[in-house]
Amino acid sequence: MGRVTERRKVLRIRDGAVSSRPDTLVAEEPLEIRLNGKPLAITMRTPGDDFALAAGFLVSEGVLAEQDDLQNIVYCAGATVDGSNTYNVVDVRTAPGVTIPDITLERNVYTTSSCGLCGKASLDAVRTTARWPIADTPPVRVDPELLVGLPDRLRAAQRVFDRTGGLHAAALFGEDGELLDVREDVGRHNAVDKLVGRALQNGDLPLSRTILLVSGRASFELAQKAVMAGIPVLAAVSAPSSLAVDLAAETGLTLVGFLRGTSMNVYAGEDRIALRTAAAQG
Amino acid sequence: MGRVTERRKVLRIRDGAVSSRPDTLVAEEPLEIRLNGKPLAITMRTPGDDFALAAGFLVSEGVLAEQDDLQNIVYCAGATVDGSNTYNVVDVRTAPGVTIPDITLERNVYTTSSCGLCGKASLDAVRTTARWPIADTPPVRVDPELLVGLPDRLRAAQRVFDRTGGLHAAALFGEDGELLDVREDVGRHNAVDKLVGRALQNGDLPLSRTILLVSGRASFELAQKAVMAGIPVLAAVSAPSSLAVDLAAETGLTLVGFLRGTSMNVYAGEDRIALRTAAAQG
Repeated sequence: MGRVTERRKVLRIRDGAVSSRPDTLVAEEPLEIRLNGKPLAITMRTPGDDFALAAGFLVSEGVLAEQDDLQNIVYCAGATVDGSNTYNVVDVRTAPGVTIPDITLERNVYTTSSCGLCGKASLDAVRTTARWPIADTPPVRVDPELLVGLPDRLRAAQRVFDRTGGLHAAALFGEDGELLDVREDVGRHNAVDKLVGRALQNGDLPLSRTILLVSGRASFELAQKAVMAGIPVLAAVSAPSSLAVDLAAETGLTLVGFLRGTSMNVYAGEDRIALRTAAAQG
Repeated sequence: MGRVTERRKVLRIRDGAVSSRPDTLVAEEPLEIRLNGKPLAITMRTPGDDFALAAGFLVSEGVLAEQDDLQNIVYCAGATVDGSNTYNVVDVRTAPGVTIPDITLERNVYTTSSCGLCGKASLDAVRTTARWPIADTPPVRVDPELLVGLPDRLRAAQRVFDRTGGLHAAALFGEDGELLDVREDVGRHNAVDKLVGRALQNGDLPLSRTILLVSGRASFELAQKAVMAGIPVLAAVSAPSSLAVDLAAETGLTLVGFLRGTSMNVYAGEDRIALRTAAAQG
């Protein structure tokens, strides 16, 4: 885990004054994810939790959905000329009987030959692939006052960010606000994959009684990851994209954005937000 | 260009009070980039400047390096069942004689069979592929006082961000601080590709007298894009990763991070920063 950060010398300029000092940087390295021996995807990630990252990535892609789907995960040995291990290639073996969906995996986007490439096809692919439909999960209701307290708690739990300022973070909270897990990574999608993968390894999927909080924006990709893991509430500190909102509306995901201070925007799935005042039409 | 933003109804909760109102969201749609008819990559992007995005992506990948390398770019027609155009698939045709590098393109990371997968291989691939080595560019020297003024000017030029809060931005400045171009996108890498692609289309590569400013962190991928376009100075408002710093050090790129207020950190290529006081060893 020493590779999570690295030290480099840096020239600091402040109001014209120059000083030289060592600085702690967040580590970034490529990770190749293989599925049953076959290269599937490469992601730039912060080393650490690599097996969880790979498992979570495959949950998002509809390959894994529960602990028993996974046989094992190993680092590929002899990945360099001299036979030493880079620890940058992992192979995920699925259990016998797990069917591998016939998908084209590039940058996490599904393509279908029938409909060209469009947002609608991306939405349909997630909805039809999801093994843990959110509509089927037990009813969860979250108090807005609980939600507004979560970003500060995420920030408090970000250990590497404090040293590097260079990490995205994602956290899982229980519906009662208990912090279940937090992960940091140079890529926000990796941080979410690490959370979901760890849950799969622990037999905790679907995450049907949890809230996923991400440190920045809510993209389609992050909404997809929430849906595939059966997470009913996704909250982001910043703005969502149009396609993330569309996916949430279509799958029943509760999507909260601009969760800051004492306010938030609810873009979809408002039935899970416990409102105490009647909605005033704006 | 009406697809850059979309309107959705949102429930706003502030200090417990609830109101409903329309909200402007940044649009996100998949774009498939084909090279001479063959699908190469898919990226989630904000629609608009799609040809520039595709061209810039191919500069980063070492396929295109100057205007003459490009024959034309078209939207693929009949991409849906009913024959209508989704405008989400573009085909880039290279000019006769342009050799296509034999690279595996997945998430913008090069893999080589000789050395497994490691950060070093990623660095080597960029250095050996770059058509516009930064060391060969004319000497550029930038005053720190000029640099500290750039983030405010980037923010002032971000038109869509003001409405949605959901966009990353990248801007090109001349060495004298003139704002040359600014692009916004849900993906920071797309914003940079759009800048670089537009420059290629205009015959402005290499961008050897420019400064690239990005709104957030500086990853390996963004440093790679600067190097491939011959941009000598990359400045980021937030932190760089270890691999971005390593790539900058190896290619001669000047990498500035934490460019905020009146201060900055210089991680590599400090010879291009016009220091007026002697460096005090920290």
